Amino acid sequence: MARAQKPGHEGRLCMPEATRQIVSRRLAIAKGHLESIVQSLQKHDAYCVDVLRQIKAVEGALQKAGQITLESHLRAHVATAADRGDTEVIVEELMDALRYR
Amino acid sequence: MARAQKPGHEGRLCMPEATRQIVSRRLAIAKGHLESIVQSLQKHDAYCVDVLRQIKAVEGALQKAGQITLESHLRAHVATAADRGDTEVIVEELMDALRYR
Amino acid sequence: MARAQKPGHEGRLCMPEATRQIVSRRLAIAKGHLESIVQSLQKHDAYCVDVLRQIKAVEGALQKAGQITLESHLRAHVATAADRGDTEVIVEELMDALRYR
Amino acid sequence: MARAQKPGHEGRLCMPEATRQIVSRRLAIAKGHLESIVQSLQKHDAYCVDVLRQIKAVEGALQKAGQITLESHLRAHVATAADRGDTEVIVEELMDALRYR
Repeated sequence: MARAQKPGHEGRLCMPEATRQIVSRRLAIAKGHLESIVQSLQKHDAYCVDVLRQIKAVEGALQKAGQITLESHLRAHVATAADRGDTEVIVEELMDALRYR
Repeated sequence: MARAQKPGHEGRLCMPEATRQIVSRRLAIAKGHLESIVQSLQKHDAYCVDVLRQIKAVEGALQKAGQITLESHLRAHVATAADRGDTEVIVEELMDALRYR
Repeated sequence: MARAQKPGHEGRLCMPEATRQIVSRRLAIAKGHLESIVQSLQKHDAYCVDVLRQIKAVEGALQKAGQITLESHLRAHVATAADRGDTEVIVEELMDALRYR
Repeated sequence: MARAQKPGHEGRLCMPEATRQIVSRRLAIAKGHLESIVQSLQKHDAYCVDVLRQIKAVEGALQKAGQITLESHLRAHVATAADRGDTEVIVEELMDALRYR
């Protein structure tokens, strides 16, 4: 995918500093949670449903981190696309990412 | 939630050994992926859409790990519930976990 | 997909009567909701975000109907699979349906 | 939620004509599909897993209709928000709708 260009670091769109820190912290917490699930799986009496619930909790945390990233992107980069003149590129790359799995 | 009881470790339902290993390995890989996203967020030119895509990739990996866990649980524990006589408990706790977010 | 066989209508697994009625009623309501969205789309001043929210509401209703169907299937057919001896078939067809999109 | 104001029908943001028609057609098809599921639920030998799969197919169709609506909204209204000066309102209402369930 072509990446929308212009302002930011050396003329490229960059994640706003505050968002980078918030998302980074949230992903670090999710990582710790994943680590504890892996550890609980060392035990012979790990129970499927407990594991399932833990995995879903981490999925929820990642979804929340994704929403924060998306909201920041809309505000900082998509809302200003018409000004920069890259609406097509920025909308397409975002839709592509949202459909990604 | 009451936990379905009976066979396994000291009379409790436990995750089959093979599933524990497979899920554990997959979650460890997801953890490594999360770690690399956190590292990429140290850089000032991290881009929202790249981060979004990475987060979605990890979500996909967790969903897959959850499906493996679920399939193993259905086979090892739910399919035998009528035999054990704990159908109500095991179905309710599973539905509760699946709705969990 | 091979379909799990045995009890029910002429020896086939069938949706329990009560579930059929509940799910049918819920889907009929969702259909009515969809119909009203289609009508609102006749108007020139329909607004994207309102439509998006309506579509999500119907998706939520369908998810709920799916959960009721799943719970009934687990209770009536999966929990008794070991008794019937068709665990492999019934687990595989269910996982296949859950992954379906 | 306050609704972003300005151009379009009597000064309000409106769904682009082409999107309205495409989404309308897709939702009408989904409605027909739902109708046929309701009919299949009249039969005593309806099978849970078949119903589950059908419900998921309609959910998929609605998701696709939602994506088309979102893409059109991003292009027509979000990308021009900085120009209109309503970035905050339009981003918040969109995030609110995306989180909606």
